[in-house]
Amino acid sequence: MKRTLISELKENEEAKISGFLEKIRDTKYMVFAVLKDMSGTIQVSIDKEANKDLVAKLEGIIASSVASFTGKMVKSEYVKQGGREFIPTSLEILSSSASLPLDATANIDTRLDYRWLDLRSDKNNLMLLCQSALVDGMRKYLVNEKFTEIHTPKLIGAASESGSDVFEVKYFDRTAYLAQSPQFYKQMAIASGLEKIFEIAPAFRAENSNTNRHTTEFTSFDIEMAYIDSYLDVMDLEENILIAGLTNVKNLYGDAVKELFNVDIIIPTKPFPRIKLQDLYQELHKRYNYEIPEHDIGDMNAEAENLTGRFAKEVYGHEFIFVTDFAKTKRAFYHMRDNDIPQGYDLIWKGTEITTGAQREHRFDVLEKQAKEKGLGKDVEFYLQFFKYGCPPHGGFGLGIDRLNMLMLGLPSLKEEMFIFRGPNRLNP
Amino acid sequence: MKRTLISELKENEEAKISGFLEKIRDTKYMVFAVLKDMSGTIQVSIDKEANKDLVAKLEGIIASSVASFTGKMVKSEYVKQGGREFIPTSLEILSSSASLPLDATANIDTRLDYRWLDLRSDKNNLMLLCQSALVDGMRKYLVNEKFTEIHTPKLIGAASESGSDVFEVKYFDRTAYLAQSPQFYKQMAIASGLEKIFEIAPAFRAENSNTNRHTTEFTSFDIEMAYIDSYLDVMDLEENILIAGLTNVKNLYGDAVKELFNVDIIIPTKPFPRIKLQDLYQELHKRYNYEIPEHDIGDMNAEAENLTGRFAKEVYGHEFIFVTDFAKTKRAFYHMRDNDIPQGYDLIWKGTEITTGAQREHRFDVLEKQAKEKGLGKDVEFYLQFFKYGCPPHGGFGLGIDRLNMLMLGLPSLKEEMFIFRGPNRLNP
Repeated sequence: MKRTLISELKENEEAKISGFLEKIRDTKYMVFAVLKDMSGTIQVSIDKEANKDLVAKLEGIIASSVASFTGKMVKSEYVKQGGREFIPTSLEILSSSASLPLDATANIDTRLDYRWLDLRSDKNNLMLLCQSALVDGMRKYLVNEKFTEIHTPKLIGAASESGSDVFEVKYFDRTAYLAQSPQFYKQMAIASGLEKIFEIAPAFRAENSNTNRHTTEFTSFDIEMAYIDSYLDVMDLEENILIAGLTNVKNLYGDAVKELFNVDIIIPTKPFPRIKLQDLYQELHKRYNYEIPEHDIGDMNAEAENLTGRFAKEVYGHEFIFVTDFAKTKRAFYHMRDNDIPQGYDLIWKGTEITTGAQREHRFDVLEKQAKEKGLGKDVEFYLQFFKYGCPPHGGFGLGIDRLNMLMLGLPSLKEEMFIFRGPNRLNP
Repeated sequence: MKRTLISELKENEEAKISGFLEKIRDTKYMVFAVLKDMSGTIQVSIDKEANKDLVAKLEGIIASSVASFTGKMVKSEYVKQGGREFIPTSLEILSSSASLPLDATANIDTRLDYRWLDLRSDKNNLMLLCQSALVDGMRKYLVNEKFTEIHTPKLIGAASESGSDVFEVKYFDRTAYLAQSPQFYKQMAIASGLEKIFEIAPAFRAENSNTNRHTTEFTSFDIEMAYIDSYLDVMDLEENILIAGLTNVKNLYGDAVKELFNVDIIIPTKPFPRIKLQDLYQELHKRYNYEIPEHDIGDMNAEAENLTGRFAKEVYGHEFIFVTDFAKTKRAFYHMRDNDIPQGYDLIWKGTEITTGAQREHRFDVLEKQAKEKGLGKDVEFYLQFFKYGCPPHGGFGLGIDRLNMLMLGLPSLKEEMFIFRGPNRLNP
């Protein structure tokens, strides 16, 4: 018999259900079990006298084992589990669990050691569904707008953007590096005549730091498009895809997120507020008496981001805010400049930076000059070639999907959010 | 003025068009240029006498440069380019090209050195669009069927499936490895309570071989689902997603593929033909006098795959064929067995293997025994843990999307098909 999802059971119809045994309670005359599948849970009620064979099969079986029952769902006003219970006539134990090595009091590191058990909770399962829906909503928007999905290499021949923070790979008789971002290659796609592209793929950072926002490997959602008039077009696109992603999550899981995370998913209004960095500094000083430290002038830091989130909320009633006009010394060499001002932005969501976006410099001679200015030589030579034989003006941005989902659900760290977290001290499971 | 796509120009309406200059021809009274964007091409016709400023701007500009024209499209029966031409009133050179370093006679290695120029051809551009559409069609099918997209780590702590062919990464003060496939982690997702998952991500193989079918990095489309009754359910799913992917490509680009690649995209009928390996050997012997070499008995090789494709075409009139009942010595330890027969299959398309699929062994004790039998010890210990605390029965498969697109379009090698190819001797661009 084909299996039926618990949510799709019909009253009094013979069916097979399969899932994890969430609870087993043995009483004098009855065994009550709770079975859970991807669609929900149901109480399975077994009359011990009438089902001696089933009871025998349950001998020694503990919660977290996997089982199939055949039988019928009936309505019952006595059952809390949605007023339904399942009366089985047969049982198959599909997988028997050993005693669980962690309980609700386990700390995050123990939970990560047994991540597959940790993820079984309703909350963590929903968290993964939300990430999938968020990405899918953003991607569908792009596909509808005729963006092409590309897959760029993660093994690269030069240390790319900077020599530090890059992982080295033993590549036969030489050294390769793991891509820190697909930046150079998505620009290559533009030089290849693809006008609108995106990629969703891992990016690697050899940062030996342990914060809530850092990881050595994350999934990056990267976008680039040609023939923009300015970086304002890039901001406009980013607004649209974030709205598309959040709308998809809200439609599919908005109520569940409210229930389990106590978070409202707010669909932002357009345009998101925008402010120049210099004006922002003044506002943060005036309102919160905040002074940006000398070495961060022309840039932001975590504290400034946090206050900026507060500022956006208080002044604009908005969760998002674009900050523009950073100092050229604080931005990558490939950002286009106008009168020495980088033509790009950071986007802050709920007090955390989620993107750097920009129009890129596509003119070979200007780009070469800007690379030299930053002291970049041999490592970017291959990249400069992309602009030598004609390249359309273009711009784009990248988003870490784990950070996005973390912020959306109000989670405290990437460790909690990622399917499997990777940090300097964590390579398992 | 906002840019208009060439395909969307309306007769006699003022518009701005932008793209690569494909050709520039200077005649006595006129300059004729062909401008190309993502939507098509158009002839730009410049009356030299009336547009001296435009002609001056074109001085020294060669084909492959990037330009914007404003003006009007008019219909003209004299123009081959779709009976339309563009009469410009202004011109902006967006990016000026140096002399191209390769021409139509360049060999594949030179072309790969300048891949972004190589990809500009109509054929290669279409090839990338087809890959994107193929993947999107398959993914949409899965999302509609409530599959969850996951992102598993590529940096792993153990050499996983086998110690050979794995890249080593310097990971702070220890060694990490690059994942050869997400196999273990997609099974972990099943143990986590996600019942249907997929991932599209890079996989890495340190194989020092130079064939048309091998690369050190490729994009793998991986699927796993729980509560299957047998591997027949996996085959059924694979049929459905391939049909969905091919249908999407055919709908979007079927005519263009026929024109540029001279290939018909055939939507396969269900069910795909299926044959046991032993029966297949007999057929190949009977029909083509083929004898499988001693060391490949219980398995296939490239020649056998090729003949199997021919057999499927001749006997079933089908491009696809499932081959089942391989020898257990030739299959991974995690394939479920029934009476010692691995419960899985290879899928052959047009004479090339595109997938290995199987029901997985989810019973901890059986799995542990099968791992030991293959001599696998410490490296798979972490993986075995996933099955200790209850794990649903499940199965799945993986597809290399580049190989799929290569076969779909009848391309001779992965070098031709991949956005950027990676091999033992190729890490650039």
